Amino acid sequence: MRQSSLFTKTRREAPKDELAKNAQLLIRAGYVHKEMAGVYAYLPLGLKVVERIKAIVREEMEAIGGNELLMTSLQSKELWEKTDRWDDKNVDVWFKSVLKNGSEVGFGWSHEEPITELMTEYLASYRDLPAYVYQFQTKLRNELRAKSGIMRGREFVMKDMYSYTTDEEAHLKFYNAAIQAYHNVFMHVGLGELTYLTFASGGAFTQFSHEFQTVSEAGEDTIYVHKKKRLAVNKEVLTPEVLEKLDVKREELVEEKAIEVGNIFSFGSIKSEQLGLKYKDEEGTEKPVILGSYGIGITRLMGTIVESFADEKGIVWPEAVAPFAYHLVSLAGNNGDVAAYAESLYEELTDAGKSVLYDDRDVRAGEKFADSDLMGLPWRIVVGKDTLSSGQLELVHRKTGETTHLTRSELLAR
Amino acid sequence: MRQSSLFTKTRREAPKDELAKNAQLLIRAGYVHKEMAGVYAYLPLGLKVVERIKAIVREEMEAIGGNELLMTSLQSKELWEKTDRWDDKNVDVWFKSVLKNGSEVGFGWSHEEPITELMTEYLASYRDLPAYVYQFQTKLRNELRAKSGIMRGREFVMKDMYSYTTDEEAHLKFYNAAIQAYHNVFMHVGLGELTYLTFASGGAFTQFSHEFQTVSEAGEDTIYVHKKKRLAVNKEVLTPEVLEKLDVKREELVEEKAIEVGNIFSFGSIKSEQLGLKYKDEEGTEKPVILGSYGIGITRLMGTIVESFADEKGIVWPEAVAPFAYHLVSLAGNNGDVAAYAESLYEELTDAGKSVLYDDRDVRAGEKFADSDLMGLPWRIVVGKDTLSSGQLELVHRKTGETTHLTRSELLAR
Repeated sequence: MRQSSLFTKTRREAPKDELAKNAQLLIRAGYVHKEMAGVYAYLPLGLKVVERIKAIVREEMEAIGGNELLMTSLQSKELWEKTDRWDDKNVDVWFKSVLKNGSEVGFGWSHEEPITELMTEYLASYRDLPAYVYQFQTKLRNELRAKSGIMRGREFVMKDMYSYTTDEEAHLKFYNAAIQAYHNVFMHVGLGELTYLTFASGGAFTQFSHEFQTVSEAGEDTIYVHKKKRLAVNKEVLTPEVLEKLDVKREELVEEKAIEVGNIFSFGSIKSEQLGLKYKDEEGTEKPVILGSYGIGITRLMGTIVESFADEKGIVWPEAVAPFAYHLVSLAGNNGDVAAYAESLYEELTDAGKSVLYDDRDVRAGEKFADSDLMGLPWRIVVGKDTLSSGQLELVHRKTGETTHLTRSELLAR
Repeated sequence: MRQSSLFTKTRREAPKDELAKNAQLLIRAGYVHKEMAGVYAYLPLGLKVVERIKAIVREEMEAIGGNELLMTSLQSKELWEKTDRWDDKNVDVWFKSVLKNGSEVGFGWSHEEPITELMTEYLASYRDLPAYVYQFQTKLRNELRAKSGIMRGREFVMKDMYSYTTDEEAHLKFYNAAIQAYHNVFMHVGLGELTYLTFASGGAFTQFSHEFQTVSEAGEDTIYVHKKKRLAVNKEVLTPEVLEKLDVKREELVEEKAIEVGNIFSFGSIKSEQLGLKYKDEEGTEKPVILGSYGIGITRLMGTIVESFADEKGIVWPEAVAPFAYHLVSLAGNNGDVAAYAESLYEELTDAGKSVLYDDRDVRAGEKFADSDLMGLPWRIVVGKDTLSSGQLELVHRKTGETTHLTRSELLAR
C-alpha cells in the first residue's frame, strides 16, 4: 500500500485524557481513534492488525473443530431472566434500551445465554454432540472506569467459544485441546514466553477456571508465577491448599502484574439446566448437556502486544500481526532516479507477494524515519541516493535496530 | 466441510411469527436464527454467505481507492447534536442508553457524523484530499416494524462508504466511479439483470440521490422502470419535470415493486460545515470539504438474493455467494465401498481447492435430497452404488435441475 493513499497520519500527541500507553501509541501512529473513554474506532492499519489476530485465532479454533457463527448484539430480557442475569444487581455492565413497543432490550456483553438457547433448536440426541461454536463479536459493556486503552473497553472485539458435550470426560478432552489451542495462539502472536496458564477461581461446578495471563506492568491482575513449571496462580486462589494441590511452594512463586488475555471455564450442566438444553443418550434417557466457555479478547490482545514490545520510539509489531511486513522508505527528495527505483522496487516486492507499506510521501527523511519507528513495522527498507551507486539496500530490523545491507535480488529472495 | 461436523440441521417449519420468505427459508435451511423480530444470528453457513458478499463488495471498494476502517457502535450525544440528529423527533430509530456517569449514549444507526468528525483529525490541506473510507458495520435501528426478514432488521450488516473531496468536479468523478463499482457488485452477486439505477429524491444539495433497486415482489418500494435505458425513477420523484429531465416518457415506464439494495448520496458541504471539516486550498483559503455517502445493505442483499432466486424446493444460491460450490451427497447406506469412494472423492476435491459440503450423514436418500434442495448449493454431486459400477458421477445443477454424468477426472478438471 502506498502511504500517500492512506488518509491517516501520525500525530505528535495523543489526546490529553488518554492515560494508557497502548492507546497513546496506537492513536499517535494512526491505528485507532478514540470516540470516547473506552470506545475506539479501528483505522485502516489498526483494522489490519485486528484481522491478522482474528485469522490466527480462527485457524486454531477451526483446528479443534469450531463452527464459526455470529450472534446478535440485541438481547432479550426474557432469556437473561431465565439465568437470573438480567437484573443490574447481578450484572452491572448491561447497556439497556427500549423497543418502540415498550419492551426492554439489552446489548450483548456476553453470549453464553443466547448461544445455549440457540443450541436447544439443534441439539437433541447424543448423536448431535459434541458441538463447538465460536464467534468474533463486538461486546458492549457499561464499565464504570475505562482507563486501560483498548485493553478494557466499553466496546471491544472478543472471540468467544462454547463447547457442548455429553459428559465430563468428553468435556475435559476438549477443554485440554482448547488449552493447547490457546497456547498456540499466544505463541503465534509473539506473547508465548510472557503468557502463563493461570489457575483462577472456578464456580459452582469446578474448583478452578483457567486464565491466560501475560506478564506486564500494565496489567490489572496480580498473579504468582512458577517460571519453571510455566504456570501461575491468580491472587484470588493463592491458598496453602491450592499450592499443595498444584505441588508448588510459595517461595518458588514470583508476584507479577499481568493482563488476562484469555480464559476458559467449565460450567458443568448448570446453564443447560436453566435454559433447558438436554439430550437423549443411547438408552433414551434425557440428560443436561455439559457446557464450557473459552474467551480471547482480540482487541485486548492487540493492546497487550503494544504494551509488551513498544520501546521509546514507538510500537514494535511481531511479524505475525503487523499490518505490513515491510516499510519501504523512499528518500527520493527531488531525485527522479531514486523515486523511479523506489517505485519499481515497490511494484516488484508487491508482485512477489510481499506485504509492503511504501512511504512515497514528499516529506523529510527525519520525519519518515520517526513515523516509521512509531508505526513499528518489522522491517524497514531504505532507498536513497546511495542505493543507486552501491546497488545495496539498507534493511533495518525494528525490534533490534540491526541494519543489514543486501542487493535487490537478495531482498526479493528473502 | 463434512455435514456431520456442522451443528445446524434443516427444519420443516420456520417460526410461526416469521412472515418473510427470505427468513423462512434461511431459518429452515439452517443459515440464520431468529433472536427476536428483525434480529437474526448468522449460523455457520449463513456467515459464509455474508463473508462472501463482503469480499465481493470489499474488492470493488478497494478498486476505487477505499480505505477500510471500523467505527464504533457507541455514539456520543454531543456529536449528533451538532447536526441536530440526536433528538428522537428528528431521527426516530435511535437506541439510546446511559453510561454509569449518567451521560447518554446512542448506538450507531448511521456513521456519517462520527466518520466526518474523525476526518477533521486527518484532513487539513488539499494535499490530504481526496479520501475515501468505508466499513462493514453492524447497524442498530429501533424500527417500529420489522416484517421483512433479514431485509429490514433492527440489527444488520451494512457497508457504508464516504468520499471527501475538494470540489464538485472531484466529487462527481468519484460518485460516477462508485456507480460503476455498485453495478459491478450487483452483477457479480447475480442480481445485475434485476437491479436498476434509480433516481430518488436528493436533499438540500442535489436534486437527486441514486438508489440501486432490485425488482422483487417482496420489495417495499415502488419504482418505475425504463427497461431499455436500464434506469428507474422512484415513485417519490415521479413528476413531469423529472421525466423530461431524464428524457423518458411516462408510458415507457413499468411500475414495479423493488428492494433498495444500495444508495448513494451527495451531501455537498452541509455536514462538513456543521462538523467543522475544512481544508486549505493551494492559495491557503479555508474551504469546506465535499462529502458523499454510499451504502450497500450486506444482509439485505443476502435476503434479496434469496427472494429473487428461491423456488418451491428452497434456496438457490448464485455460485459467487454460495457457502460452498458443491454439495457432495453420499448415498452409501451400509455399503462400505460407496462410503469409501465418497470419502476419497471428498478428500480429492478438497485437496484440489474445490469448495465442498460433504453430506456424510447416515440418513435416507430422500431426506438428503430434500435438504440439499432447501440449502441451495449450486452443484450437487451424487455418489451411489451406480457410481462404482458405471464410473459415472451424477452432477445436478440446482438452478436448472439439469443433470449431467461425468467421470471423476472430468469432475476434478471442471
